[in-house]
Amino acid sequence: NHIVQFIQTVAQNSRPGTIITDVGSTKQQICEQLKGTLPAEVTFVASHPLAGSEKSGYEFSDQNLFQDRPCVITPDESVPAEAVSRIRQFWEALGMHVLQTTPEKHDLILAETSHLPHVVASALAATLATENTRYTSTGFRDTTRIAGGDPALWIDILLSNRDAIVTSLDKYSQSLQQFREAILTQDEKRLRQLLEDGKKKHDTLNSTP
Amino acid sequence: NHIVQFIQTVAQNSRPGTIITDVGSTKQQICEQLKGTLPAEVTFVASHPLAGSEKSGYEFSDQNLFQDRPCVITPDESVPAEAVSRIRQFWEALGMHVLQTTPEKHDLILAETSHLPHVVASALAATLATENTRYTSTGFRDTTRIAGGDPALWIDILLSNRDAIVTSLDKYSQSLQQFREAILTQDEKRLRQLLEDGKKKHDTLNSTP
Repeated sequence: NHIVQFIQTVAQNSRPGTIITDVGSTKQQICEQLKGTLPAEVTFVASHPLAGSEKSGYEFSDQNLFQDRPCVITPDESVPAEAVSRIRQFWEALGMHVLQTTPEKHDLILAETSHLPHVVASALAATLATENTRYTSTGFRDTTRIAGGDPALWIDILLSNRDAIVTSLDKYSQSLQQFREAILTQDEKRLRQLLEDGKKKHDTLNSTP
Repeated sequence: NHIVQFIQTVAQNSRPGTIITDVGSTKQQICEQLKGTLPAEVTFVASHPLAGSEKSGYEFSDQNLFQDRPCVITPDESVPAEAVSRIRQFWEALGMHVLQTTPEKHDLILAETSHLPHVVASALAATLATENTRYTSTGFRDTTRIAGGDPALWIDILLSNRDAIVTSLDKYSQSLQQFREAILTQDEKRLRQLLEDGKKKHDTLNSTP
């Protein structure tokens, strides 16, 4: 894991009292591999700001990127409260609201809210026959927007959270199969339930700021 | 089909020379069911403007809704060229570029570019555990945006294009299974291919105006 090596190098060259954080999309592997490897006087508080886009590089920088977005921190229980508090204040100063949990729970939750959607979008983009491109509209583009993300970055994310992502994928595939069954058997009542369930979740999601 | 009944009622109350069009999302069922049922002096030219959002009602009206978006027309071969031309000009006057094909091809293509994405987004929204809502970010919202569409409308669309949608869903499920396999077996090379394939399609899609 590139992040682990980078943090170790930085830590070995830091003054006593330094607090280090990161912005990696999975937390369990990073936290486990770092455990016990840093100098005693340097503290690591893992972070995952849930902000960004499929674009990368300076030309796509955005001064409001972090505004009102969530940031998850997953500090080890050995980290002093003072260090956790400083990292929390750092993200809050950038406009984020901070959620605290364990690396394990973070990875289970983000498998569902971030890693699964990436696979879903990427597989959908891949399904499109090139000659049908001109028959797409905003719906297809929105649904596949995140498929434009950097493959190298996403390989690291998907492989470092394998089990949770496979579990989420299987849950999602079951949901797809329910749609397939309802459409195939022309089960209007069941199809209505499925569509309304999706819409209810969508509406909840878009009513929270 | 509500659209068929509505067009028949309108046609029976129209003056000779009237040209009627529609904005339905599937075309084969409408065109087949209308065939031979309209007064001889009234012409029907089927249309599907690929524009809209998950919102409905007057308060979400948008004067630029049709600007630079595609509109598919699927006129029966018996329709005079003059009538096709007038409908084409009508949509072009609203800023759309018009694509012409058969009802059958329209439904096969749109199953992939519009109906499949709706099922994909709706199933993804349904998969989200309510307690994880606050751990979502813009990626999840974009990928599930169209799941906010009106269930009653989408029941009609999904059931009137059943076979093509089931075929698209199966193709998509295979693509998902390839991701699952690559993640499960930690096959980095294969995973890179899959992600790059998705990104390539995404980039093509977003480079066309």
